[in-house]
Amino acid sequence: MTNAVTRILGLDPGLRRTGWGVVVTEGSRLRWVAHGVVAPDERAPFSERLLHLLEALSVICAEHGCDEAAIEEVFVNMNPASTLKLGHARAAVMLAPARCGLSVSEYSPNLIKKAVVGTGHADKSQIAFMVKRLLPSAGEVKADAADALAVAITHAQLRKRALLAGAA
Amino acid sequence: MTNAVTRILGLDPGLRRTGWGVVVTEGSRLRWVAHGVVAPDERAPFSERLLHLLEALSVICAEHGCDEAAIEEVFVNMNPASTLKLGHARAAVMLAPARCGLSVSEYSPNLIKKAVVGTGHADKSQIAFMVKRLLPSAGEVKADAADALAVAITHAQLRKRALLAGAA
Repeated sequence: MTNAVTRILGLDPGLRRTGWGVVVTEGSRLRWVAHGVVAPDERAPFSERLLHLLEALSVICAEHGCDEAAIEEVFVNMNPASTLKLGHARAAVMLAPARCGLSVSEYSPNLIKKAVVGTGHADKSQIAFMVKRLLPSAGEVKADAADALAVAITHAQLRKRALLAGAA
Repeated sequence: MTNAVTRILGLDPGLRRTGWGVVVTEGSRLRWVAHGVVAPDERAPFSERLLHLLEALSVICAEHGCDEAAIEEVFVNMNPASTLKLGHARAAVMLAPARCGLSVSEYSPNLIKKAVVGTGHADKSQIAFMVKRLLPSAGEVKADAADALAVAITHAQLRKRALLAGAA
């Protein structure tokens, strides 16, 4: 069961730029598949920007035949207007894999840092460094996509533990 | 142009309960078509609750052949966790008409109260009372759906003014 090939879509939501990354996990092996950023037109009406996120990520989800999805939990300790906007973007992003019938796991930023770098207090450059280390075939990865790949890596690690615990 | 028949979908978003209402406007006439509430299973995973809102409202939008949609703006002066949840629900709700190719207008709670009751400081019971007055064929309307119909009525009034201004 734990050696089955699973394609994981990691998501780092944002209204301006949403990072995404796909990895394959098979047993203890982890392989990079693809990554990128979706950036809706900032001049478009709000509902169209959300629709752009939903549609673009639905295509990515289907094209890569993803099996499971994971997304970063939001840190709410910021200004209410930003929190509200990010909530909208995050919903549009989550709905893409949900529409494709995928479960969407949520991980806190600290848990992601711990899973990828080994400490909950890592900064963005450390995450990008470790993502490159763990997924050498990914090549050059910019910040949003690196964060999305970090979420996918976190899910690959934690789902395996959950499956092992379930089989024990 | 202003005498064309237009079907308007009004939306009052909430993660637990989202009210919706459809009205038809033709010139200065306003007619009730339908209303209801979508209430996703609270025990379901978060992404599935959002998907329930999106799917149910997409069906409603298509079934009633809506031409335009309107939604209440969110009052952000509340606790950040609630704001974040409401942002998610509101995005799922907005995406339903957006997916159907409809424009989605946004109105502040004060503007809606002013348009429906005549004052920006009306309470919920006054809104429900005026919705019944303006749409007598609607029959019994509960709070969430009354708010959604109030948004639809607001849009019917304000779009007409905008069209008249455009034609002048």
